[in-house]
Amino acid sequence: MKKKLNKILKELKSLKSELYEKDFLLTWQKSKADLKQTLLVAEALKLLRDNNISPKVFDSGLAISQFRDNSTRTRFSFASATNLLGLEIQDLDEGKSQIAHGETVRETSNMISFLSDVIGIRDDMFLGAGHEYMKEVGAALDFGYENGVLPSRPTIVNLQCDVDHPTQSMADLMHLKETFGSLENLKGKKIAMTWAYSPSYGKPLSVPQGIIGLMTRFGMEVELAYPEGYELIPEVIELAKANAEKSGGSFKISNSMESAFTDADIIYPKSWAPYSVMEKRTELLRNKDHKGLEKLEKECLAQNANHKNWECDEEKLKLTKKGKALYMHCLPADISGVSCKEGEVSENIFEQYKVETYIEAGYKPYIIASMILNSKFKNVAKTLKSIAKSKKQRVKT
Amino acid sequence: MKKKLNKILKELKSLKSELYEKDFLLTWQKSKADLKQTLLVAEALKLLRDNNISPKVFDSGLAISQFRDNSTRTRFSFASATNLLGLEIQDLDEGKSQIAHGETVRETSNMISFLSDVIGIRDDMFLGAGHEYMKEVGAALDFGYENGVLPSRPTIVNLQCDVDHPTQSMADLMHLKETFGSLENLKGKKIAMTWAYSPSYGKPLSVPQGIIGLMTRFGMEVELAYPEGYELIPEVIELAKANAEKSGGSFKISNSMESAFTDADIIYPKSWAPYSVMEKRTELLRNKDHKGLEKLEKECLAQNANHKNWECDEEKLKLTKKGKALYMHCLPADISGVSCKEGEVSENIFEQYKVETYIEAGYKPYIIASMILNSKFKNVAKTLKSIAKSKKQRVKT
Amino acid sequence: MKKKLNKILKELKSLKSELYEKDFLLTWQKSKADLKQTLLVAEALKLLRDNNISPKVFDSGLAISQFRDNSTRTRFSFASATNLLGLEIQDLDEGKSQIAHGETVRETSNMISFLSDVIGIRDDMFLGAGHEYMKEVGAALDFGYENGVLPSRPTIVNLQCDVDHPTQSMADLMHLKETFGSLENLKGKKIAMTWAYSPSYGKPLSVPQGIIGLMTRFGMEVELAYPEGYELIPEVIELAKANAEKSGGSFKISNSMESAFTDADIIYPKSWAPYSVMEKRTELLRNKDHKGLEKLEKECLAQNANHKNWECDEEKLKLTKKGKALYMHCLPADISGVSCKEGEVSENIFEQYKVETYIEAGYKPYIIASMILNSKFKNVAKTLKSIAKSKKQRVKT
Repeated sequence: MKKKLNKILKELKSLKSELYEKDFLLTWQKSKADLKQTLLVAEALKLLRDNNISPKVFDSGLAISQFRDNSTRTRFSFASATNLLGLEIQDLDEGKSQIAHGETVRETSNMISFLSDVIGIRDDMFLGAGHEYMKEVGAALDFGYENGVLPSRPTIVNLQCDVDHPTQSMADLMHLKETFGSLENLKGKKIAMTWAYSPSYGKPLSVPQGIIGLMTRFGMEVELAYPEGYELIPEVIELAKANAEKSGGSFKISNSMESAFTDADIIYPKSWAPYSVMEKRTELLRNKDHKGLEKLEKECLAQNANHKNWECDEEKLKLTKKGKALYMHCLPADISGVSCKEGEVSENIFEQYKVETYIEAGYKPYIIASMILNSKFKNVAKTLKSIAKSKKQRVKT
Repeated sequence: MKKKLNKILKELKSLKSELYEKDFLLTWQKSKADLKQTLLVAEALKLLRDNNISPKVFDSGLAISQFRDNSTRTRFSFASATNLLGLEIQDLDEGKSQIAHGETVRETSNMISFLSDVIGIRDDMFLGAGHEYMKEVGAALDFGYENGVLPSRPTIVNLQCDVDHPTQSMADLMHLKETFGSLENLKGKKIAMTWAYSPSYGKPLSVPQGIIGLMTRFGMEVELAYPEGYELIPEVIELAKANAEKSGGSFKISNSMESAFTDADIIYPKSWAPYSVMEKRTELLRNKDHKGLEKLEKECLAQNANHKNWECDEEKLKLTKKGKALYMHCLPADISGVSCKEGEVSENIFEQYKVETYIEAGYKPYIIASMILNSKFKNVAKTLKSIAKSKKQRVKT
Repeated sequence: MKKKLNKILKELKSLKSELYEKDFLLTWQKSKADLKQTLLVAEALKLLRDNNISPKVFDSGLAISQFRDNSTRTRFSFASATNLLGLEIQDLDEGKSQIAHGETVRETSNMISFLSDVIGIRDDMFLGAGHEYMKEVGAALDFGYENGVLPSRPTIVNLQCDVDHPTQSMADLMHLKETFGSLENLKGKKIAMTWAYSPSYGKPLSVPQGIIGLMTRFGMEVELAYPEGYELIPEVIELAKANAEKSGGSFKISNSMESAFTDADIIYPKSWAPYSVMEKRTELLRNKDHKGLEKLEKECLAQNANHKNWECDEEKLKLTKKGKALYMHCLPADISGVSCKEGEVSENIFEQYKVETYIEAGYKPYIIASMILNSKFKNVAKTLKSIAKSKKQRVKT
């Protein structure tokens, strides 16, 4: 362990990051050094805990968990991460339908933050709302901190918004780094981020957007594929293009799963709703137009049903690099014949990669803990070193 | 910090308080020494935490949070306070409508308390019920402790009942002490506790009752003002009169916001429901008479609407001492043109005092933590001294 | 304390138990050494905490609480136990009606367990389902641990299933051991586990099954009594018979409360639903057949009403050994004239034994903590010794 940790600490010291006292909202607001540091600190935290050393840096403090959509895995990841660092979870439950703005957000954000260190927010249901909401909370906290209301500025961690899902995409990146050996090794690797058929509708765009927004920064060949009509937010597409150019990789859009899979090293087949549908849905949700929502759902499911052939199956897998591309998914996947009649992935493919997808998910608690640690400690290498030196056991033996 | 803390400790040692092993239900059950100590310990706890020293006196233990009405700020204040001291929050959620009595209260109170140290209760919906319920829980815990069922007697903290709201009024008092420099300086200051218009109904009486019951003890000139028909519980009025006489202050009731504001040092304009309406409402709630409740709400809102001029606005503020009285509110306020069309306070007044009201709210977690500490430690000055001496960091640096 | 603890440690060292790295699902899957150790460790933990020594062996880690049925006392017992050991509760709330199987259980079980140490499950509504579900979760965790997904294997604690209620029956056994002085003293003592009338229906079978499955192992004379038609699961009956034979006790079934009470040292009168009704109910619940459920409830309540004389009253108590048998109940009891018109026990009998039933319930947190400690620490005597030696105060004095 010591050797591995020292390697991480050495690399950390070489980075000039700007994570201290910052929220983590979108990966593209972060420098490459920031992203590298986030991965390294996550690795260090996992290493420490796996070796029964407790990185509990807080003796008390609250971590607020605000989910405006259902969640099990991200909720538990956030709880695990904050518990690991010594914070106690407190849920802020304001009802799913309520979209508060202005004074209410400003006031509530301060009222819950007097002794809080972190606020994790999931707000992915309304297009154009989630990211804006987090910025609004951030401004409210700035106001409170600058005016002497709050003794410190709680860090906001985006647990999924309408634009990005950074704890997911960073966990995915950590998985790729572990699988391929290093970030450098990702250069030139082809990743296929593709739409896939699902008998449900209204799934957020943040996962595919998060993936193309992040992976294009590491020199990868990113191909985004979806049936016509399933576009993502235009700004993120522009961003992915610019990223790819800058990093020496490429970014391509096609309307063919087969094209995307061909020679791919990594495949990420996952359903999402068309941008235009999400826009309509947001408006209908805001107006509480239940009839309109039912109608939209029907239309959308009918539209989906035209693309049942967008399933990740054995035949398509054969198109990938040596027929052995790494299959990724944020889970839960719609597995044909298991969780639904026809879905995103065939049963035998999922079965083959199941353990890998579980391992992929297992990085998320450490990514979140890393985001918190980086925002709270200026010299995080020193912090980690002092944790390791303390040898405080997580389980007393 | 050291100097400030020593001053607090010195003052603490001079007090003969009786808070040890007692619940905190009503401020008027407490001596002046008790109240002073509650403030001092809250100040010490804030000072310690602001200087990154952790006053975690419990290594484990549960703090039970029982809210029979919705709450965000008091819920988080209680969670923050108990977390600061080392207790873990566990919610007791028994449904809002259920009013349990007798055996059920006795049994449940014991069943949840085997390893619990504190029970925080909000029960403010039913007139004549909340305070009685807390006493019933207290008696049940006494029974359990005396009969060897419980290893220790959990402390009950009133987080708002039908009669008093001591964590609010004590936080308000702490705010006044900070603002005016000392409790002594409050002597002769005029505070206007006034009704204000709100387009809602059924707001509890505990805030105005808490304020007049507490501030009359410190030699203040307390003027309570409300439109005819918005009386408070008669017993609390009698109490406020007696307090004022004893403390050398005064207590006056008027039916004019202008009268109350004139020359006031502090103004506290806040809506509440008439006593008689709350009595009717309690009966209707008990009988689950939904039609009756709707009718009562309509009548009450119509009655309210006759008093829209009871708004704290710039013109009325000019009547106060130098036109600069301190505006207070327990939050959330009904702000005209912001949270409602016409409300308790005009937008520009609220905006002007917003930071102050946030700071006022920020004392509540420390007041609650102080109430707990005082009930659990006989020599609280010694406890605080030993915390300070330990220099245990809240955030490890 | 030292002497008492040393006695426990000495006895612990003499036992060859196999609790390490095992779930606690059914008492009859455990050896007698296992059961004895569970009691001893619970006693030690209680002793330590009563003497203000904190047995906090975890510096961080989650304890997952999954209740598929309402619960207050077991929920708080689990929260208390895990908090005592240093774990933070996180609720897994998946809705009451949802019965997930297969991939969903496998995946969810892993997703919530990356940094979790214990999972407490209550699943008692569906006959043939609860125990099976826990085994399924166990297999999922094995899969995750063996495949490198989970850093450690969380322990499952059965907080009540369709077959057994081991935290209840073990707490009951601890109460009997305390009351009668030792497990040895239970030999030859008669315990009457009897059905009792209640104006409700659908109560699980796990308490009577747990009692007859456990008490028959300690040489007790166990008499199970119920009106015709209120049979328990046949397999558990067979098991109780075999246990009694092996332990030198006896197991008898009768259809008379009077027969069971005659010369009994201990009586445990408690309502339950007939096995056949539970089978039908399970099917109706699965099919969400609300009309069928209402019909079944009516029939069942009518059937119950034929047996109102199955009440534990003064007259029947006179039949017991010296008229002074120990009355036991898992609480809450249906008390005639208190919680219902006619119920399981008369008011004066319950009043007479109330404190005992409270004390009985108070052992549960320690039994649960013991189950966790035993599964996590191979040499639990050493662990306890080192806790005692550390003298870490639970409340800092």
